[in-house]
Amino acid sequence: MNRRTFNVSLLASAGALAWPRPQSHTGFRVNGRRINARLSELAQFGKTPEGGTHRVAYSDADLQARQYAMELMRGAKLEVSIDAAGNVIGRRAGSDAALKPLMIGSHLDSVPEGGSYDGQVGSMGAIEVAETLAENKVTLRHPLEAALFQNEEGGTIGSHAIAKGLTEKELSLIANSKKTIREGIKFIGGDPEKLAGVIRKKGDIAAYVELHIEQGGILHGEKINIGVVEGIVSVNWWDVAIEGFANHAGTTPMNGRRDALLAAAKYIEAVNRIVTSVPGRQVGTVGRIQAFPGAYNVVPGRVTTSLGLRDLDAAKVHMLFEKIQAEVRGIETATGTKFEFTQTNATPPAPTDARIRRVIDESAKQLGLTTKLMPSGAGHDAQEVANLCPVGMIFVPSRDGISHSPREFSSPEDITNGTNVLLHSLIKLDAMNLD
Amino acid sequence: MNRRTFNVSLLASAGALAWPRPQSHTGFRVNGRRINARLSELAQFGKTPEGGTHRVAYSDADLQARQYAMELMRGAKLEVSIDAAGNVIGRRAGSDAALKPLMIGSHLDSVPEGGSYDGQVGSMGAIEVAETLAENKVTLRHPLEAALFQNEEGGTIGSHAIAKGLTEKELSLIANSKKTIREGIKFIGGDPEKLAGVIRKKGDIAAYVELHIEQGGILHGEKINIGVVEGIVSVNWWDVAIEGFANHAGTTPMNGRRDALLAAAKYIEAVNRIVTSVPGRQVGTVGRIQAFPGAYNVVPGRVTTSLGLRDLDAAKVHMLFEKIQAEVRGIETATGTKFEFTQTNATPPAPTDARIRRVIDESAKQLGLTTKLMPSGAGHDAQEVANLCPVGMIFVPSRDGISHSPREFSSPEDITNGTNVLLHSLIKLDAMNLD
Repeated sequence: MNRRTFNVSLLASAGALAWPRPQSHTGFRVNGRRINARLSELAQFGKTPEGGTHRVAYSDADLQARQYAMELMRGAKLEVSIDAAGNVIGRRAGSDAALKPLMIGSHLDSVPEGGSYDGQVGSMGAIEVAETLAENKVTLRHPLEAALFQNEEGGTIGSHAIAKGLTEKELSLIANSKKTIREGIKFIGGDPEKLAGVIRKKGDIAAYVELHIEQGGILHGEKINIGVVEGIVSVNWWDVAIEGFANHAGTTPMNGRRDALLAAAKYIEAVNRIVTSVPGRQVGTVGRIQAFPGAYNVVPGRVTTSLGLRDLDAAKVHMLFEKIQAEVRGIETATGTKFEFTQTNATPPAPTDARIRRVIDESAKQLGLTTKLMPSGAGHDAQEVANLCPVGMIFVPSRDGISHSPREFSSPEDITNGTNVLLHSLIKLDAMNLD
Repeated sequence: MNRRTFNVSLLASAGALAWPRPQSHTGFRVNGRRINARLSELAQFGKTPEGGTHRVAYSDADLQARQYAMELMRGAKLEVSIDAAGNVIGRRAGSDAALKPLMIGSHLDSVPEGGSYDGQVGSMGAIEVAETLAENKVTLRHPLEAALFQNEEGGTIGSHAIAKGLTEKELSLIANSKKTIREGIKFIGGDPEKLAGVIRKKGDIAAYVELHIEQGGILHGEKINIGVVEGIVSVNWWDVAIEGFANHAGTTPMNGRRDALLAAAKYIEAVNRIVTSVPGRQVGTVGRIQAFPGAYNVVPGRVTTSLGLRDLDAAKVHMLFEKIQAEVRGIETATGTKFEFTQTNATPPAPTDARIRRVIDESAKQLGLTTKLMPSGAGHDAQEVANLCPVGMIFVPSRDGISHSPREFSSPEDITNGTNVLLHSLIKLDAMNLD
């Protein structure tokens, strides 16, 4: 059937099924006190002396947090299972057996010495939304899946497993818990021999919406309640090797040097200058550096450093990289050095779905909240799930933009707001044709 | 007596002692074939697969090289002893018992994975000069001491021991051989309990002349035979700590960063620009750097780096440091970071003696060699001995200025030339009043 026909029948069937009309849901609110209390309870698993959370994937703390979340899911009337990849899935049937599930969720694991909000807000938020629906005796048309993806911080492993599958190489990687991914999957109740069964096909999920903390300072700085995510930026990493010539720092005149660290300094400045020379929200970062031999009294003969470029627009990343390359040719000539770039990560951008962005924006505004359209500079499970279905993301403010730190913080009010936006976005999406 | 009176009596006594007049020595030449053959033999002790020398102080190779050199000293009619600090001293009496010794020498130890010329040319050169004098049956007025100072590369330890003494802290330092200095001194035949006895007083030595490879590329580049060293530059090292703020490289906008590595890059460029902005042979080097946490995707929150400044003129070093400080204040403001400098080395300049410089220059020219007055950018035992007596240094060319490397090389001809200059400088100094 064509889209117009479907929409007409949808509106008709909504009334016929005694399913409450959208208007009747507008008063629903999540229990803000409950979700914030649960976030505090969750933060006990892997709590650090600094007040942060150390809950790397496949650790005991991770296992305990998963058990805690599964208990909450059962209380929220979700049917809980662990898939072969180790993801926790809470399911609830919909009223229309022909429809594919709407998925909401995030992750429970943290970076080493991390905070108590990243992933955790979206995980507790998904359960809170399911519980609010159950308490209000709302049955959605679509089945609902609350997904707690395993090992997001180690490379979106759980969501990658359902979107693309895991290779033998990926299964052999050593995670932060010192277990391989394979061992970790077994540890949390998955079955690495049955991973083929968890891969979903495009169209198996109707839509995915993830609530998450911003991890940047834009919303907090501009005092905006809700970020409507335009997409998850392309992430590009390069290893950069610079060859000069090591020599005695006392006896080698300034004009006789081929100083690899001086070349690196000019390169780092150039990256910053080029990335900030064009309008937009692209970022460019040099985060790693090592100089050899690395002594007070030796002109560095070799430097290894890095380049990271992120933007929603892959063409802009390409343009910036080309500009950096052109500048590097000049630095090589000026310093008598040679640069070599080796790309180690090239994650393409994952745009969110325009309809879902609209739904999130409307839901927030109906709740009296301010919104801002913004890219996600960080990677998320949503970028993996974007391979399977339309996705959307809801951001809540991070105080001072601090993330991956014990000082990571989002206010209880912002968390409640974000969860209400997730609830109402879900209700609106359930009423739509998302094919 | 006043100087004029002394000079008169000196000339008189020179004739009276049947000590050959200076003119009669001008035909003396060292045995170039012999000294170069001995350098090859010496290079067997600690020879590396790359053809260099790994002979760190207090290693077995160091011990073997010392035994080899002591055997040569005995052949050169020197009376050999090991002082309490472990320095090898070869002595020969002079004709005037009232005079203090003239000292020549250098060191046998190498840096890790070093070359076969640094220190070794001056050591074999000193023995060659003594042997040439003995073969020609010349007795100098002054006693002669050929000194092979121990552990020059680990901080001019042996020469420091005779000039200033060694502190408990210095004795506890771990050398490259993994032995403490104290253990090392015992290992090579010294006696750490009797170090007070090796300290010499100002005036205990008449003069010290050291033959050494340049370790820079000036003589080789300008095709000059002999460097007449103006002095050994002041060596100044600082640890530099830069505090910014670590944050997620994906979510932190460019204008919201306090990037310690970007600040470091601006600092490294500034050091180079400031040091090269004034005329002279001063050098400024940033050799060490570390960024924390040091990941592709984290804006560096902290960088530790270094500063090295060297010049013959301490006031110029001070002026350069002040200029760098002023520039750093601007970098702090521009990048939202804070710099802290901690000085870890402040070796004052050690000027050579004007009379000795003149003697070296004249000796070289009489041998038909070209000369250049130049600073020594590297530290040497001579700078320690300069606390006790007038010193001079003779440089021979280093091919391409490469040093502290298996590729370090000085030609047999240049080595022979330098040793002849040492011989004739010594003869001229012996005829002078050096008080």
